[in-house]
Amino acid sequence: MIEVPEEGKYVVLLSGGLDSTTLLYYLRSLNYRVHALIVSYGQMHFKETLIASLLCKNLNQPYTLLRVSGLKTWTKVVEGEYTPENTKAMTVPFRNSIFLLHAANLAVSLGWRHVAYAAHKGDAPYPDCTAEYVYAMKTLLELAHHEPITLEAPFLGATKGEIVQLGAKLGVPLERTWSCYKGGDKHCGKCPTCLERKKAFEEAGIDDLTEYEHV
Amino acid sequence: MIEVPEEGKYVVLLSGGLDSTTLLYYLRSLNYRVHALIVSYGQMHFKETLIASLLCKNLNQPYTLLRVSGLKTWTKVVEGEYTPENTKAMTVPFRNSIFLLHAANLAVSLGWRHVAYAAHKGDAPYPDCTAEYVYAMKTLLELAHHEPITLEAPFLGATKGEIVQLGAKLGVPLERTWSCYKGGDKHCGKCPTCLERKKAFEEAGIDDLTEYEHV
Repeated sequence: MIEVPEEGKYVVLLSGGLDSTTLLYYLRSLNYRVHALIVSYGQMHFKETLIASLLCKNLNQPYTLLRVSGLKTWTKVVEGEYTPENTKAMTVPFRNSIFLLHAANLAVSLGWRHVAYAAHKGDAPYPDCTAEYVYAMKTLLELAHHEPITLEAPFLGATKGEIVQLGAKLGVPLERTWSCYKGGDKHCGKCPTCLERKKAFEEAGIDDLTEYEHV
Repeated sequence: MIEVPEEGKYVVLLSGGLDSTTLLYYLRSLNYRVHALIVSYGQMHFKETLIASLLCKNLNQPYTLLRVSGLKTWTKVVEGEYTPENTKAMTVPFRNSIFLLHAANLAVSLGWRHVAYAAHKGDAPYPDCTAEYVYAMKTLLELAHHEPITLEAPFLGATKGEIVQLGAKLGVPLERTWSCYKGGDKHCGKCPTCLERKKAFEEAGIDDLTEYEHV
């Protein structure tokens, strides 16, 4: 189930993937003011930052491209479905937490007080995408500055399929979003996030126009 | 009151000031393995990062110097005691939270699971130095990765005077630590953190050998 986030001006973490791009469109469709935060952190698939920037440019959407140093990221992409081992191999420890805090910092410098995060039900193998985690981060963002910052994660109770349905309804150019960890010319079609992407379209009953290396 | 942190290998946030330098010495005196994290974030008093690095070099203390981008910091230093207004003017929103999460990331890449933070009782005008905040950050660090990271803040119930007393006992070169926000040749002696530094030595009953521009 997709929630309606409280009214506000939002900094939204934008990776350029299905979920965060749909979140951006969703907030805009509610007529909330939005600023996107795109992060380059040495990821193998840095292509996602270019895709995210282009998505913003096409929308006339203000965004900030931030460079985060010091995070050791994976250098080899595993293939196959998410398993506990695959998830661990693809984890950059505390990455999303650092990004959310930068989003909160950016919100304060804009004079805003809302941050949006596209974590969803199917992300839950990642410890920083669970309801428990979001609750802990909400608490932190309420306490850590002189004024509280509100974190909203409206997709937390939704499946990726529901997000694809919402995206299709809102006119998100879903095929132009980027998921693949390999960051090649086309989506590889084999890595855990490509497999999740395919399943989401299937679940949504919506044609997947993504070009895959391996269908 | 100063607490004894649980045994472990610690990444400690080191600013080069009285508190974090004493914390570094304290953990070393307990024979805990330590790695220092020093952060350059565009601060006016970037001199503190040089002081912190030198302190480590003199101790043969392994450390990492991290560059954090994207934080807008103050460009003018207020003078006088900490007031709510002075504290706000000297706050970089979510700075310490971002640094603590980088410390946790570094701990994971070292195969460690402890982070130490030198927040103390007198820091409490800063919202990210309160017991409530530390508790929220502890919770987050326990949840946000596949393995929990433990945050220890052994000075949280101590005054800055008690920290100076501990530092003196442990042989910390207190006069070589750096507090001043202005980052000039000498400590200015007028900014809020210089005033706190002076008071701490007085409270501790220990000679303050710091060179001040204005005594």
